[in-house]
Amino acid sequence: MYFASDNSSPAHPRVLEALTGVNNGYAMPYGADAIMDRVRDRIRDIFEAPEAAVYLVATGTSANALALATYCPPWAAVFCHRNAHIEEDECGAPEFYTGGSKLVLVEGEHAKMTPEALQATIEATGQTGVHNVQRGMVSITNTTENGTVYSATEVATLAEIAHAHGLPVHMDGARFANALVADGATPAEMTWKSGVDVLSFGGTKNGLLGVEAVVMFDPAKAWEFELRRKRGGHLFSKHRYLSAQMDAYLQDDLWLDMARSANAAAAKLSQGILSVEGASLLHPTDANIVFAGFPRAGHRAAQEAGAAYYLWPFEQPMEGPGGEALTARLVCSWSTTDEDVERFLDLIRG
Amino acid sequence: MYFASDNSSPAHPRVLEALTGVNNGYAMPYGADAIMDRVRDRIRDIFEAPEAAVYLVATGTSANALALATYCPPWAAVFCHRNAHIEEDECGAPEFYTGGSKLVLVEGEHAKMTPEALQATIEATGQTGVHNVQRGMVSITNTTENGTVYSATEVATLAEIAHAHGLPVHMDGARFANALVADGATPAEMTWKSGVDVLSFGGTKNGLLGVEAVVMFDPAKAWEFELRRKRGGHLFSKHRYLSAQMDAYLQDDLWLDMARSANAAAAKLSQGILSVEGASLLHPTDANIVFAGFPRAGHRAAQEAGAAYYLWPFEQPMEGPGGEALTARLVCSWSTTDEDVERFLDLIRG
Amino acid sequence: MYFASDNSSPAHPRVLEALTGVNNGYAMPYGADAIMDRVRDRIRDIFEAPEAAVYLVATGTSANALALATYCPPWAAVFCHRNAHIEEDECGAPEFYTGGSKLVLVEGEHAKMTPEALQATIEATGQTGVHNVQRGMVSITNTTENGTVYSATEVATLAEIAHAHGLPVHMDGARFANALVADGATPAEMTWKSGVDVLSFGGTKNGLLGVEAVVMFDPAKAWEFELRRKRGGHLFSKHRYLSAQMDAYLQDDLWLDMARSANAAAAKLSQGILSVEGASLLHPTDANIVFAGFPRAGHRAAQEAGAAYYLWPFEQPMEGPGGEALTARLVCSWSTTDEDVERFLDLIRG
Amino acid sequence: MYFASDNSSPAHPRVLEALTGVNNGYAMPYGADAIMDRVRDRIRDIFEAPEAAVYLVATGTSANALALATYCPPWAAVFCHRNAHIEEDECGAPEFYTGGSKLVLVEGEHAKMTPEALQATIEATGQTGVHNVQRGMVSITNTTENGTVYSATEVATLAEIAHAHGLPVHMDGARFANALVADGATPAEMTWKSGVDVLSFGGTKNGLLGVEAVVMFDPAKAWEFELRRKRGGHLFSKHRYLSAQMDAYLQDDLWLDMARSANAAAAKLSQGILSVEGASLLHPTDANIVFAGFPRAGHRAAQEAGAAYYLWPFEQPMEGPGGEALTARLVCSWSTTDEDVERFLDLIRG
Repeated sequence: MYFASDNSSPAHPRVLEALTGVNNGYAMPYGADAIMDRVRDRIRDIFEAPEAAVYLVATGTSANALALATYCPPWAAVFCHRNAHIEEDECGAPEFYTGGSKLVLVEGEHAKMTPEALQATIEATGQTGVHNVQRGMVSITNTTENGTVYSATEVATLAEIAHAHGLPVHMDGARFANALVADGATPAEMTWKSGVDVLSFGGTKNGLLGVEAVVMFDPAKAWEFELRRKRGGHLFSKHRYLSAQMDAYLQDDLWLDMARSANAAAAKLSQGILSVEGASLLHPTDANIVFAGFPRAGHRAAQEAGAAYYLWPFEQPMEGPGGEALTARLVCSWSTTDEDVERFLDLIRG
Repeated sequence: MYFASDNSSPAHPRVLEALTGVNNGYAMPYGADAIMDRVRDRIRDIFEAPEAAVYLVATGTSANALALATYCPPWAAVFCHRNAHIEEDECGAPEFYTGGSKLVLVEGEHAKMTPEALQATIEATGQTGVHNVQRGMVSITNTTENGTVYSATEVATLAEIAHAHGLPVHMDGARFANALVADGATPAEMTWKSGVDVLSFGGTKNGLLGVEAVVMFDPAKAWEFELRRKRGGHLFSKHRYLSAQMDAYLQDDLWLDMARSANAAAAKLSQGILSVEGASLLHPTDANIVFAGFPRAGHRAAQEAGAAYYLWPFEQPMEGPGGEALTARLVCSWSTTDEDVERFLDLIRG
Repeated sequence: MYFASDNSSPAHPRVLEALTGVNNGYAMPYGADAIMDRVRDRIRDIFEAPEAAVYLVATGTSANALALATYCPPWAAVFCHRNAHIEEDECGAPEFYTGGSKLVLVEGEHAKMTPEALQATIEATGQTGVHNVQRGMVSITNTTENGTVYSATEVATLAEIAHAHGLPVHMDGARFANALVADGATPAEMTWKSGVDVLSFGGTKNGLLGVEAVVMFDPAKAWEFELRRKRGGHLFSKHRYLSAQMDAYLQDDLWLDMARSANAAAAKLSQGILSVEGASLLHPTDANIVFAGFPRAGHRAAQEAGAAYYLWPFEQPMEGPGGEALTARLVCSWSTTDEDVERFLDLIRG
Repeated sequence: MYFASDNSSPAHPRVLEALTGVNNGYAMPYGADAIMDRVRDRIRDIFEAPEAAVYLVATGTSANALALATYCPPWAAVFCHRNAHIEEDECGAPEFYTGGSKLVLVEGEHAKMTPEALQATIEATGQTGVHNVQRGMVSITNTTENGTVYSATEVATLAEIAHAHGLPVHMDGARFANALVADGATPAEMTWKSGVDVLSFGGTKNGLLGVEAVVMFDPAKAWEFELRRKRGGHLFSKHRYLSAQMDAYLQDDLWLDMARSANAAAAKLSQGILSVEGASLLHPTDANIVFAGFPRAGHRAAQEAGAAYYLWPFEQPMEGPGGEALTARLVCSWSTTDEDVERFLDLIRG
């Protein structure tokens, strides 16, 4: 009953097998390994983007920060939701990599920027020439930090606003697979067909040990990205061990299967919780994360039985006055089992 | 017959087994895994440094750049050898992480700074107050880029000069194990007992998939390091897979055994080459890298048979006028076999 | 009738005379001039701070950015009002100088942070350890961008909150003199006695050609500041021409006289406007800036007669439907005359 | 008898008069003043460059650092002489503004890069792809730190090498006027006709209070430069006081007259010293700086009489064993008089 985060789930066995499978003799270093050639081809196929530049790094923070730095100059703004991972959970990595860009925050329920808020925020920025931080780019997190999903259509609406102002669009897809299977769009529809210019294509939270791809649909900035990756210390000499993970991930739709499984577990969990007296959802359960309030007694029973999850917001004390509900943040992963979910539901039902 | 680099050698099977061994269920993320606790204890034991702060990252460049940034302010100089990896092979990562420190280059044969050159270079820096880049820190690469090794005594002499000027000392130990077994010093003698303040303790080139430890013998700057690591995108969520590699590395002296094996292969290779008519060494073979000149005919025979290695300097063309010797850079790893070495020697002997 | 900004007003004649007065022969460069010694002493006297470190730069942006960088590490937050100059009008200079700190915005009417908002914003920042931007420092603008003034007591309340969280306090005093004479506090009461650690002590907007002092009440970071100033290109070789301006500024309370005059002009202007039918103030006129709405007809008359000022917000079009009022931002300086004010009032009264 | 530096000389009286001349009423801020329009036109005329972008800043360090940052990305090298001001005297400002570029040092006598050394240094840089700092740009100091001058022809030879490698060329012309009158070339010949892309056009050392122009002969990067200037805190609100200085400087060839006067004083000083028994020149006296050795007795006499200058190198002690010569660095300015020179010569002749 581990619902603390998908970032602490195990790797899929086929991913580990792939590591063993490439551990033979020498391989060209720094991304020149033959497996990387295959990975690049696969990602281009999957995204219907034969010209895309594709690079691997080991962490989501580095994927995001490098992508932003490649598209946004130091004196410009990255427009993102107030609750975006790049704003709240990366200790300023975007500011570090860009050389001091400003994250300008956009409002919207459930961690989704509204088109109106994006439009207004862009237009309120950079009005007085050289005195202001300029308009730089837009970053969309999908799946959001609240577990909600932008549909491809919603992405297209935001990207249209960005492009109308001449701004490129980044998608933080640390949970891209979860968003994709939730929406039903194709990878191309969710990204470049909707106006996304650069994607952080996550793997770590969805069954890898630690690999994310950065996909630039227009390869014009590929060499700059390579220099930034090296300079950031994110170019692996024994790169084959990154390639092999991504290779296994994409093989036979493993990545989609794992995301579907995680989303299904969350849906079951969410529906189960809602059937409890006094329970409610804080955010829609679009993907693999559930934000749900339920009575303290349920929390006590679950935690006594060893269930691991966070109260929300993080600093929330478990104990306090009254009998009211407390909100839990429950994250499912590819490895969450039906038994985990059912046992948890049994516990909180009392 | 692969001598191009130790950074393209495979991981040791016990390291891969360790990955599989920890791939069970959930584990605390971001370095809070139980295996990391064991790794920290082991490194403290091995270095006889019970207070040391110990952190893992996945690349040598990040280990070095983060270590330098933690100890050297942006307006100060890092004194290092002209051929140091941080100067020549990291695309400016030290400058990026420090916020623009200047690498001030020290001379010396065989990629080893001499005490005289270090002393003179420090004293020539920062003489006119606020107008100059200040004196910041000293970085010693051991094993050097030329495959030579500083003895613990030599390290102590350099560190004494540094400390006399109030400067902390970094050791880039991407090939630390190779230097250690070459010199015969203990880990403590090679580092803090000789005045090293912070060590990049390499694993990647010596049998891991991609893990380096940063060891700060005085933990005063530990929290700052943690923030810099996170902000640089080098903190792994699924950290157990770094911990497990380092854990296997240290278990039963695997790290030392692998380094001994690589050094022995290089010694055998070096001696064998020297027995060829017209051959000579460009640098002493102290550790696992051989820089040797031998006749063109030998190069041709080796390369036709598929031997992989670099001519030196890198841009050297294989073909050219005359019958003179060409210099090869030949790197042995833990996985280099006697057969590799013997076959290579047979080929170049003609 | 120039009310566009105090930053386009002339320098006081005594300031220009002082430049001529020091233009004799050679003078020690880089701040070692004798006039700077006198300026330092005077500022220490005026602020009752005999140990304070005092430095001159030529622009308000550099004073602020250097002060912030000296007190706030790259991975930390500067808490400031949403409308602070450092947030809105410096093109990211604080982010550039700090190496990527994040400006975290605090709410409050009339560009003044409320204690409650500051407290809540600090506490919402840096809750989850290494993942977040840390809490860094607090920056208070006095006079604010809305022309309002924090009393010394209000400053003390904010600073107490900052210090309770271990955070140093910066005051952006580009219009410090205007705030001081408005509140009636002494320089010491408005700054270190109320908890301000570092002050940008403005002169440019109040009668100088271009000089601001940075005053650090605890001199511990003086040398770091000097290095940052030099490295930022803000150390003047012919420094005497900065010193002489500041020297004249402080002589015989010229700085206070000029601020009083500007504030008085604004008060007269503000009261005069309020007597117009349909007029209102957007913000209280505490110092030398008036934000007032009055009928379009008045705007037309004033502008046809050559009055220079901005509509507010800046992008406001002059023409539009209806007869309603438009808001003007009107800034008075030491050189604004009674005649300017009266003529303007006559015009808008119609 | 002040020969310590031209940076501590006074401003020319006509420059101060110009300040007074513009101190009337309000003027558009931030470079939009009418005088700046005239200055821009004049500089374009003088340089026969009708499209050039022209900006003013107040210090040489900021002019250089902003120019470099505009043309060199963070991961690339600035090739300059080992004794360039940007390397030795700016406390790392170029590294700060570029975001961590590396200054790669080129050799050559008398602080002048030789074409051979420049060619070899460029070619030794950036050979192994993404691992290395890339080749960025070339910076030529004219007049050099040793008081020597590159002829326009020599500049053209260096620039040709730079351009053959695709690298733009910067000229640090803190003493541009001195070089120009020494060589006899036109401003256009010394700069863009010889391949210079961006010039730091100095005024401070040659009779201004503190103004340098940055001239970009191709205006493509003008807006980026403006943003960098603002973000660096180098955009003056009361910009007219910079404009007025430069305006007076260019009026009636004042800038050239002052440089001629300074050069003539240095020539006279140099020749006079050489006539002393035991005297010699360390570097040719091409412009306004003399590096000359002469007997200790002469130093003693001069210093007792109050002559101000530096021994060279800076840390040289005045007293020591033997009767040999000591080297002095003697800088003449526009305000150095024949009497100063003659009196000094009388003193050292004994």
